[in-house]
Amino acid sequence: MSGRKGRSNSEEVPPIDLHGLVRELFPINRSLTGAGVRETLAILARHVQLEVREVPTGTAVLDWQVPLEWNIRSATIRALDGRCLVNFADNNLHVVGYSKPIHKEVGRAELAQHVHTLPDRTGYFADDWGFCMPDNLWRTMQDEAYRIDIDSDLSPGSLTYGELFLRGELSDEVLITAHICHPSLANDNLSGIAVAAALAMRQSRLPRRLGYRFLFIPATIGAITWLARNEGHLAKIRYGLVLTCVGDPGQFHYKRSRSGASIDSAVAHVLCHSGHPYEIVPFNPYGYDERQFCSPAFDLPMGCLMRSVHGTFPQYHTNQSYEVLATLLDLLDANWMYVRTDGRGEPQLGRRGLYRAIAGQKEAGGASQVDLLWVLNLADGKHSLLEMAERAGIPFGRLEKAVRLALDADLIREVVLD
Amino acid sequence: MSGRKGRSNSEEVPPIDLHGLVRELFPINRSLTGAGVRETLAILARHVQLEVREVPTGTAVLDWQVPLEWNIRSATIRALDGRCLVNFADNNLHVVGYSKPIHKEVGRAELAQHVHTLPDRTGYFADDWGFCMPDNLWRTMQDEAYRIDIDSDLSPGSLTYGELFLRGELSDEVLITAHICHPSLANDNLSGIAVAAALAMRQSRLPRRLGYRFLFIPATIGAITWLARNEGHLAKIRYGLVLTCVGDPGQFHYKRSRSGASIDSAVAHVLCHSGHPYEIVPFNPYGYDERQFCSPAFDLPMGCLMRSVHGTFPQYHTNQSYEVLATLLDLLDANWMYVRTDGRGEPQLGRRGLYRAIAGQKEAGGASQVDLLWVLNLADGKHSLLEMAERAGIPFGRLEKAVRLALDADLIREVVLD
Amino acid sequence: MSGRKGRSNSEEVPPIDLHGLVRELFPINRSLTGAGVRETLAILARHVQLEVREVPTGTAVLDWQVPLEWNIRSATIRALDGRCLVNFADNNLHVVGYSKPIHKEVGRAELAQHVHTLPDRTGYFADDWGFCMPDNLWRTMQDEAYRIDIDSDLSPGSLTYGELFLRGELSDEVLITAHICHPSLANDNLSGIAVAAALAMRQSRLPRRLGYRFLFIPATIGAITWLARNEGHLAKIRYGLVLTCVGDPGQFHYKRSRSGASIDSAVAHVLCHSGHPYEIVPFNPYGYDERQFCSPAFDLPMGCLMRSVHGTFPQYHTNQSYEVLATLLDLLDANWMYVRTDGRGEPQLGRRGLYRAIAGQKEAGGASQVDLLWVLNLADGKHSLLEMAERAGIPFGRLEKAVRLALDADLIREVVLD
Repeated sequence: MSGRKGRSNSEEVPPIDLHGLVRELFPINRSLTGAGVRETLAILARHVQLEVREVPTGTAVLDWQVPLEWNIRSATIRALDGRCLVNFADNNLHVVGYSKPIHKEVGRAELAQHVHTLPDRTGYFADDWGFCMPDNLWRTMQDEAYRIDIDSDLSPGSLTYGELFLRGELSDEVLITAHICHPSLANDNLSGIAVAAALAMRQSRLPRRLGYRFLFIPATIGAITWLARNEGHLAKIRYGLVLTCVGDPGQFHYKRSRSGASIDSAVAHVLCHSGHPYEIVPFNPYGYDERQFCSPAFDLPMGCLMRSVHGTFPQYHTNQSYEVLATLLDLLDANWMYVRTDGRGEPQLGRRGLYRAIAGQKEAGGASQVDLLWVLNLADGKHSLLEMAERAGIPFGRLEKAVRLALDADLIREVVLD
Repeated sequence: MSGRKGRSNSEEVPPIDLHGLVRELFPINRSLTGAGVRETLAILARHVQLEVREVPTGTAVLDWQVPLEWNIRSATIRALDGRCLVNFADNNLHVVGYSKPIHKEVGRAELAQHVHTLPDRTGYFADDWGFCMPDNLWRTMQDEAYRIDIDSDLSPGSLTYGELFLRGELSDEVLITAHICHPSLANDNLSGIAVAAALAMRQSRLPRRLGYRFLFIPATIGAITWLARNEGHLAKIRYGLVLTCVGDPGQFHYKRSRSGASIDSAVAHVLCHSGHPYEIVPFNPYGYDERQFCSPAFDLPMGCLMRSVHGTFPQYHTNQSYEVLATLLDLLDANWMYVRTDGRGEPQLGRRGLYRAIAGQKEAGGASQVDLLWVLNLADGKHSLLEMAERAGIPFGRLEKAVRLALDADLIREVVLD
Repeated sequence: MSGRKGRSNSEEVPPIDLHGLVRELFPINRSLTGAGVRETLAILARHVQLEVREVPTGTAVLDWQVPLEWNIRSATIRALDGRCLVNFADNNLHVVGYSKPIHKEVGRAELAQHVHTLPDRTGYFADDWGFCMPDNLWRTMQDEAYRIDIDSDLSPGSLTYGELFLRGELSDEVLITAHICHPSLANDNLSGIAVAAALAMRQSRLPRRLGYRFLFIPATIGAITWLARNEGHLAKIRYGLVLTCVGDPGQFHYKRSRSGASIDSAVAHVLCHSGHPYEIVPFNPYGYDERQFCSPAFDLPMGCLMRSVHGTFPQYHTNQSYEVLATLLDLLDANWMYVRTDGRGEPQLGRRGLYRAIAGQKEAGGASQVDLLWVLNLADGKHSLLEMAERAGIPFGRLEKAVRLALDADLIREVVLD
């Protein structure tokens, strides 16, 4: 905590232009694996010291196997007279992820089996192909046959993900993850990637009690792969957060951890005092990668922070999410227990200059007397600073100032856990 | 659970005409002991393999003694000119239970001491006699004296009750009790007797994980007697239920067990998903035989299910109660814990045929993907299936289907308790 | 409990005229230390067998030291023509407590540094002086200079407090404290002093299971001093209460103990059944002496009972507070656990004369059958009588009568704790 004295994170500006970063990442054709993922990580690596891992196709990871690598160069549907009706070059959402290569003429009835008019079609592990398009476009396509060309590869390669670890004074750590596999979905999840990268830049420049680990991984199989390779390490994770869809203007939603871990009360505390509207929802086993991290044998202390699920292009709101998360990380890094050096009665504050001699003065060194009294009363080695703040109904940051006063006056000492 | 595959208990028809059974039992003159009780049990024994127990008068049972046996043949109040004014043959509620024999002329003032114009007069352990009649009849009786005849016996004999045990695979059991002592009160408790008998018939024909024990006993002294004779056996009772007044159209009332046992959440779950209005009330130590079963040294995991207390003649509603209870027994029999064979991450559902390759398909083998994900997430050996259902907010029966899918795919296994 | 049979405390009259006692104490000039405190204790000692303790200036008490003793004879502000503008003889609130002696002419600007126009100015540990007066008086004082005389002493002496202990059958005790340091504030805290004295008189005349300890102490430093001198004794305190401002007509406020001790539910129970409006507020570490008694290393089971903080002169309402507290002390003295001599089933009440033979009679020896059934059901050695009353939703006093019936019939026995 020492290095943070006097720093306020209210209206803190991110260390990077989040909107610019999202704009740069947007056009890249990302899928579960392949060139788009590598390109994305290469851009991030210009800003943060990311280690890029490659895990070969076929590697057994828990109950799964690393799949073939998929790359695509072009894909079209043409009328038989050559007019191009649907073109992957216009919008990389037009092709179902992991579509196998195909070059042939097909009848409309057969094509109908491969056309999806709802978004979000993916078929990573199926030997299939498909196109996505708006329903009203498909209805105008009434020819008997079409020419289909998908120039893609499905072949042994590797699964790629990025990892960044910032060592702290203690061996416990905070895990932040963002998924990188969705093509051209600005909010789901380019906003999460950008905010996580900005937080990594921020934490790298701050003194750290805890370690901070950031993962940029393809959803599901990426989380599974990372878990499989780090099973011996998981006990070090003290708090964790899956970030997703944090760029839109919707209200914050926090989905609690499976086990009711203290990350839940930390996020609730920060959201409650943020002034932004928010909602806390219970854990459920569908959703994002928390379903892997919170599977029963791991049961990590991880929740998921998101805004509304169907977002708009991120602008100002990504900065707002960054600010909330920066406050959260400061809280996690400072959330320790304290014990009074002598807890028998109140200490005499006056002779320590902590209490103006005439009663009625309210402020002393940035914290109010009431804040200081709460800290002195609950510094019993059983209440974390967050638990003190919740019991007192006082924002964490204010109690933190009172803790500093009390530490400087040797009235309390930290309970060393590590 | 294996034997139940594919069976649905929605709108299940009872294995016996409940209304007919109630009509057959109605005219019998039941009391605490005596011929009426034996006749009642003999009728039940035509449908279920009841063992009839006789416990001699004077037998010490806990703090009590088995009382004298009471039988009554006739009773009248006549005017001195011989006109019969009140006749037990018309309505067996006219005579207070355990009235001693008497044959004499009494003045109106003395008779007034023995006339009750409110129902429910019983005096099992008093050396007394009495008549019950409507207040407006008593007010027309203004003669100076009347001729009283009660042809009854109060003599050593025995207390009679019926017991039926259906062995299960495991040694734990479910205890269902109904009291049989009230004369001509169709709802309190002929409905309970009829529904318990029907449930016994049903369970006898089903495969059973648990044992099922049904008691047909006189209230209070019957419960005391059974407890005294089975003290060594009580630890086997995993769930218990006192059934009473389940024939009327009132809303369901469930009175919780003294200890807050899991029978309470099981009944609450079934009622909640039954579509019927209901109320859960806290335990109290007055009421029916739960006050014996939940006395402090026994404290059995038993609640009491009833509808409104002052019922009407049972018709359709007994069937409804049967259906709710049949669903409950199925739940109790299937309420086990499961553990993932590998709980590290989600298993790959696709290659097991549990998840259609293209996301977005909702159903697989009768259970939704969400149901299956809940089961896979909470199969940690710490959540019973009922606890899973409550946490997921999903009816037990739906999760049970997901459990079957997961068991068949070797994704989970049952935690064997016995 | 034996000695209390048949005594009812409804509308119990205090053993002393509370209003008269407050009137007698009102004019005395009390401060933290000195003659006023001794005079106050001497008046109390006429009614209760108080031991007066003197602790010398300079004695180390926990983190503090006993301060100099302060006495004041007179103090005035005069115009330079000799007219007396402010006189301590008129109102002893005119001088800031612990003002040092001063005799000199001061300019208005300097005087302004020493004039307070808000009440409650004290400066026990500051080397300073001051006057208090209404703002509109101060605004009329526009002379260039004034003559100031404060004839006070600040010199080594002692801190004085009163203590009274009434031994009980058991070694556990109830601690009641009232602060005695405020000058001429009738409600804060003469009402607390008077009510505590009356309770001490009352308890001295009653048989006592528990001991009762009453402290009349200067606020903060008095509590610190008593705690420092009695550290080895604190484990005996089973229940505690700080009394303050109990003379006004405001609604009762009870501030819970830090630890959530059973005194909290006892006070809540008594207030709930008192018919008076009340509010329960959570613990906080500012307020009265509970902040010392509930400091983390002591964490005594003590709450604080008060009415509105800014009260009027006490009259009838002090009696009302006395009555509530008398009921509370009776509850604390009778709040034991019981166990059934045979908890297997209900005992047969009829043959013990506890249940009229014909059902439907409601009353037996002052307690209803329902009360008796609750006692018999919850007498399991795990529920205190207060916990029984709360679970049953029945006033403590009624269950106490049922306990007496059950004890007399040898159906239950007390669980001896001491």
